[in-house]
Amino acid sequence: MMRESSQLPLAGITVVDLTRVLAGPYCTMMLADLGARVIKIENPEGGDDSRHVGPFVDGESAYFASINRNKESIALDLKNPEDRKVLEKMLETADVLVENFRAGVMEKLGYTWEGLHARYPGLVYASISGFGQTGPYRNRPAYDMVVQAMGGLMSVTGEVGGNPARVGVSIGDIGAGLYATIGIQSVLLKRVHTGLGERVDISMLDCQVALLENPIARYSATGTVPKPLGTRHPSITPFDMFATQDGFIVVAVGNDTLFAKLCDALGHAEWAGEARFATVLARNENHVELKACLEKRLTDATTAEWEAVLESAGVPHGPLNSVPQLMQNPHVEARGMLIDIGIGQGKPLRIAGNPVKIGGVDTLTNVRNPPSLDQDRDRLLAEFKL
Amino acid sequence: MMRESSQLPLAGITVVDLTRVLAGPYCTMMLADLGARVIKIENPEGGDDSRHVGPFVDGESAYFASINRNKESIALDLKNPEDRKVLEKMLETADVLVENFRAGVMEKLGYTWEGLHARYPGLVYASISGFGQTGPYRNRPAYDMVVQAMGGLMSVTGEVGGNPARVGVSIGDIGAGLYATIGIQSVLLKRVHTGLGERVDISMLDCQVALLENPIARYSATGTVPKPLGTRHPSITPFDMFATQDGFIVVAVGNDTLFAKLCDALGHAEWAGEARFATVLARNENHVELKACLEKRLTDATTAEWEAVLESAGVPHGPLNSVPQLMQNPHVEARGMLIDIGIGQGKPLRIAGNPVKIGGVDTLTNVRNPPSLDQDRDRLLAEFKL
Repeated sequence: MMRESSQLPLAGITVVDLTRVLAGPYCTMMLADLGARVIKIENPEGGDDSRHVGPFVDGESAYFASINRNKESIALDLKNPEDRKVLEKMLETADVLVENFRAGVMEKLGYTWEGLHARYPGLVYASISGFGQTGPYRNRPAYDMVVQAMGGLMSVTGEVGGNPARVGVSIGDIGAGLYATIGIQSVLLKRVHTGLGERVDISMLDCQVALLENPIARYSATGTVPKPLGTRHPSITPFDMFATQDGFIVVAVGNDTLFAKLCDALGHAEWAGEARFATVLARNENHVELKACLEKRLTDATTAEWEAVLESAGVPHGPLNSVPQLMQNPHVEARGMLIDIGIGQGKPLRIAGNPVKIGGVDTLTNVRNPPSLDQDRDRLLAEFKL
Repeated sequence: MMRESSQLPLAGITVVDLTRVLAGPYCTMMLADLGARVIKIENPEGGDDSRHVGPFVDGESAYFASINRNKESIALDLKNPEDRKVLEKMLETADVLVENFRAGVMEKLGYTWEGLHARYPGLVYASISGFGQTGPYRNRPAYDMVVQAMGGLMSVTGEVGGNPARVGVSIGDIGAGLYATIGIQSVLLKRVHTGLGERVDISMLDCQVALLENPIARYSATGTVPKPLGTRHPSITPFDMFATQDGFIVVAVGNDTLFAKLCDALGHAEWAGEARFATVLARNENHVELKACLEKRLTDATTAEWEAVLESAGVPHGPLNSVPQLMQNPHVEARGMLIDIGIGQGKPLRIAGNPVKIGGVDTLTNVRNPPSLDQDRDRLLAEFKL
């Protein structure tokens, strides 16, 4: 039933997972992919909310399936004394407890950090919430969209002069899930020396601030309010999408050496020597002029032709891929970044793999399908008998 | 000179850092913030490329300063035999080596994984590159912009019917930095049992695929190509930005209970009972209609008025913040998510803090300013004498 996971780095770590929807489940998926045993505890009335978010395949949520592989499921009512005993029995041997309730909910259930730490001194307890366990907004609810807006990311994303745009993935949740994974692992490392768990307190809004490091530093340095720039990088030029004869190409030139290679490849070696384009700073100041020069030349040939030219010149570039184009890309395939899981009555569903590649071992060779609600009840109750 | 870091979770871990620009330095900043000692090795001809990326304060790069706190710096020429000996001496006691050269560069320098592992068996060696150490594109160069475009994220970000937009931060780099941190820590945890380091191979493109988990699952389930949706969530409704009398508000309602609360708060309790809006699925199908209903009502009052109403109703919501609005937010301040470092001749620069909050200890209380190039040379040479 369990995966052959002794080679995986987190083999031997047990995670009790009270999370739902996205930030928490993304974190516990990372831990599970890396070899931890994740026991997902779901509410008996329908389980994880994301089981009811579409699209569905044979009545099962692809949203849920995408982030709950390699987990076991049991339904427990955390207000029911018998069910609480099962949870508490699990915590006796667990290494990590993760939850993403709104701040205060665990305390109302009678599970404070102080109480948990006294009873299970080695337990690492991670909370992921919209605004964290401290501060004036700690009791406010949040979702991805809220922290993308409040956190400033929407204000720097979108077309020049246009409306703010949401990042097309839930980076408010996924970001928090990644920082939570980092926090949990860091405390597991410290625990090797101390034997003691600690409380990890992750706020989705804090994580947005952390992702916004560059716009914050730019504003601090210049006083200029960062705005959406379409596809252009704010401080590096040319780092943008350009029209070709038949579509678009992205060119990303981070230093003067690469810029000289680009100019050579385009048959305009002289540009690299001109004062207006000679340095990163000059190119950044004259980005409109430079884009005009580049597009005038790039529209002479097709994207595929320029890809060949820029590849042999060693200039970083790439096509704009749609999701299906990405999924058909031979390199993505070769890297094992797409895996097939079973959904519904066992229908294959292709989902994203795990990008943490270690020692040539594919962490997802023995992927366990996302569980149906309460799927592992009997086995788990037998294992954690009172 | 060194931080008082014995309480921090990664105290005692030493990282030799060959990285530059963003993905690698972001990873080593996370490790440093959590207590690891990070020795940044820079090329003697100008150091980290990002030292030359604007904006500048007193001639020093705010870009560089934002992601290089808590690190020591020494300039070494990795082609010079004497300098190589210094590096190799450091590796004798180091726990982690991180680099983000293009795949193949370390091998050309004579540092293969096999060679490093034979000589330093406990060393965890992490490589971050555009496309990873394997696969057909492994030798291709990449920057953030390239992987955002190739990885499909630009294709799902932007206004409805508009051009693809780049996410306003370098999520191609930062994402890779976060997954690399996770990979490194996971191997450090395994090393506790085995005593052996392993190779961590992070590809920026792989990381984009991992972030794209939901669009990939949606495409797999439905065959519909995901497109930019402006500010709307693809599968959850209402999860969007709405016009008010004087601006915009974001409302994020993830389940039916919250939707009923929203309808109540707006004085339209009847909406929650209507078939067209009764379930997540129905609301998603009728999102245009629902947005019209909501905006008709929300334009009756100001953003601030609706914030008060929605806060007391317990409905997740938030304002759209610009970067300066975010930086003035009292909750962001209370969470310690902005810190002041010294730049140039010691001028304070406010930058993003670290969102991994552990046990109430602020990891950034004793922040060390970003180093000038080669700042720690004498002390490091004395420590790692041959």
